[in-house]
Amino acid sequence: MLFFTQCFGAVLDLIHLRFQHYKAKRVFSAAGQLVCVVNPTHSLKYAPTRCAAAQTSVEQSILPPCHHHEAVHDPQLVPCTCPLYSCPWEGHLEVVVSHLRQTHRINILQGAEIVFLATDMHLPAPTDWIIMHSCLGHQFLLVLRKQEKYEGHPQFFATMMLIGTPTQADNFTYRLELNRNQRRLKWEATPRSVLECVDSVISDGDCLVLNTSLAQLFSDNGSLAIGIAITTSKVHNAEDEM
Amino acid sequence: MLFFTQCFGAVLDLIHLRFQHYKAKRVFSAAGQLVCVVNPTHSLKYAPTRCAAAQTSVEQSILPPCHHHEAVHDPQLVPCTCPLYSCPWEGHLEVVVSHLRQTHRINILQGAEIVFLATDMHLPAPTDWIIMHSCLGHQFLLVLRKQEKYEGHPQFFATMMLIGTPTQADNFTYRLELNRNQRRLKWEATPRSVLECVDSVISDGDCLVLNTSLAQLFSDNGSLAIGIAITTSKVHNAEDEM
Repeated sequence: MLFFTQCFGAVLDLIHLRFQHYKAKRVFSAAGQLVCVVNPTHSLKYAPTRCAAAQTSVEQSILPPCHHHEAVHDPQLVPCTCPLYSCPWEGHLEVVVSHLRQTHRINILQGAEIVFLATDMHLPAPTDWIIMHSCLGHQFLLVLRKQEKYEGHPQFFATMMLIGTPTQADNFTYRLELNRNQRRLKWEATPRSVLECVDSVISDGDCLVLNTSLAQLFSDNGSLAIGIAITTSKVHNAEDEM
Repeated sequence: MLFFTQCFGAVLDLIHLRFQHYKAKRVFSAAGQLVCVVNPTHSLKYAPTRCAAAQTSVEQSILPPCHHHEAVHDPQLVPCTCPLYSCPWEGHLEVVVSHLRQTHRINILQGAEIVFLATDMHLPAPTDWIIMHSCLGHQFLLVLRKQEKYEGHPQFFATMMLIGTPTQADNFTYRLELNRNQRRLKWEATPRSVLECVDSVISDGDCLVLNTSLAQLFSDNGSLAIGIAITTSKVHNAEDEM
């Protein structure tokens, strides 16, 4: 009970949650799976930011520079990795999670398989839905973003980042799954490290990408349920790489 | 051998095929899977056609009218379902396959699981890659289309249609799978009937959609390998539908 109070915060509407939870359970038909209702946040970061270069078109197909470390004098310190706000905070990687929870009020949920239920998908871009996910001894940041890369054509981008180093991130595979209306869409990839910029990942389009019509097909009453699973990576076959 | 000759036609370049086949096998690591190299066709149909309404923006999110049957006086006759050309042919559903093979030279491949290897993904839109797939006693039409819904931003759309009625189509599920560079993307859905217009399905975005950057991530040397599997649908749980 304490866990749920922590997870859903003070604004929790229990009746709404019950209803959404019931719907999400029906979508995934997996009794016992944790469902986290995630409310949207209108992004306040789309102005001159440290990642402004990442906002350029993906069509340039060059990894935008995103020098998180340029302003960091102590190499052991990392800047705030919150995708929502430009924040001057910097600290050790180990305390990023508590900074995100305490300062940016990003909820954290535990379990190997969870359902992320993003509400109010109709809200205008730019909008973010964010939670942290604690699993296999690590914390991950799940970001769903509605953004207009092409003016007037909002798209949804979903990705998972490890709150850890790129080397640690290589040990995991994450899966995002949508399942509704006799359609199923699955995306599996290695998570990126939060030391890389989430804006770059989305600008690159190296994530689950949904156009508005697909998002509508997978949504139920304005909410999108995304099944999330994280596993440790199998040893990669060298043949698979090429 | 006769089968291969039929399938790949007179323009088959055996050396090229060997090479591509080897690459596709490595991508899917599934020895024994049939690989069909599919060359692109620049679409000649983007002019006033019977499906012109389907070219309107998907953002209107209304199923575009696509009245295949309006000009058909005998209700048992269907028009040509070739997505490439405007063709005045009409005939019974049972002879659509032989019309597509003989008149439009669309190859047909047999097997429950095949790999569709689309070459020359860099070619400008509009371009189509098309084969027929014979499986479970029926024939399916696989269409991969490169199209610019938003000017200057080509996207790839892949879908599978049953050469049969919508009622027959409801009995099947098709899966398209991309797998490369430690990323995996799967799309599963019920095929549409060719009596519905392929242009509508693509305009609706109710198919596998890839932006250019994702297509590049999944491509190898300009070719995109799509794993295809068709199964008979399980009995749908009424709960899954809502």
